[in-house]
Amino acid sequence: MRILGIDPGYAIVGYGILEYEKNKFYPLQYGAVTTNAHTDFQLRLKEVFLRVDEIIKTTCPQALAIEKLYFTTNQKTVIQVAQARGVILLAAAQNNIPVYEYTPLQIKQSVTGYGKAVKKQVQEMTRNILRLEKVPKPDDTADALAVAICHGYSYRSKLFTQIGKTL
Amino acid sequence: MRILGIDPGYAIVGYGILEYEKNKFYPLQYGAVTTNAHTDFQLRLKEVFLRVDEIIKTTCPQALAIEKLYFTTNQKTVIQVAQARGVILLAAAQNNIPVYEYTPLQIKQSVTGYGKAVKKQVQEMTRNILRLEKVPKPDDTADALAVAICHGYSYRSKLFTQIGKTL
Repeated sequence: MRILGIDPGYAIVGYGILEYEKNKFYPLQYGAVTTNAHTDFQLRLKEVFLRVDEIIKTTCPQALAIEKLYFTTNQKTVIQVAQARGVILLAAAQNNIPVYEYTPLQIKQSVTGYGKAVKKQVQEMTRNILRLEKVPKPDDTADALAVAICHGYSYRSKLFTQIGKTL
Repeated sequence: MRILGIDPGYAIVGYGILEYEKNKFYPLQYGAVTTNAHTDFQLRLKEVFLRVDEIIKTTCPQALAIEKLYFTTNQKTVIQVAQARGVILLAAAQNNIPVYEYTPLQIKQSVTGYGKAVKKQVQEMTRNILRLEKVPKPDDTADALAVAICHGYSYRSKLFTQIGKTL
């Protein structure tokens, strides 16, 4: 199964495409889309949309995995991030890619086995699971790969449950 | 000048297109786009995008006016509304329509002359300014028309300022 993980934003969008086969992840492509701070906000959204659409069209993922967005205090940019998340979901919808959302807790638990893991632990386990030499930079890219891993594990678990039910 | 006012949402998007000439507003078209609650969220965003894109292409506005979105408590849906707002701004960007944002205070002041006006007063003044028999329904449509009026008045004021400066 090919999974596109996305860490949404309007300044930086982290992304990572993983092939998940026989309980092993193979990183195919990862990086970050960045937009120019001096550009009108709606043009930054357009840039995010066009780049994510291009990534989907060139890598053909079967699923998009993305973190659930919550409002917490100190998140001055949450409204803008949510707007960028909207155009990313639109790109998925226009390319007929199903979207799967995970909470930060689910991602931590899935990647490290520990719901209270700190960011560095999640990044180090992500690096380890993908057999990479270094933790991918920026953090947005590492976060995108983590949510893609989370989807791989979660999807497998759900499949097992479904198979169990039909037996 | 032709203005498209939008009240963003993922369930209901209010819209109104006004022609503003010689300090008079002429309502050309107004209504609401609704999406099906039983549909996946990203497909609702797609529906919002396609309908707003269609409205822009068929009515050719020169500006999109939209309320600024703030997070306040009690707004459980603000993240979802922001995501819908993102795809609306994308539709504007893809059609090269400039976007103008106004705060609730600016809209109230501009439409009623009074920053503490209640919703009903804004709606009644909107009806009055547009010479309509009834306040347009749903509220989202009335709100969209109000922000379009706000842009007309604000844009005119700014033009006067600019002309004054160049004299």
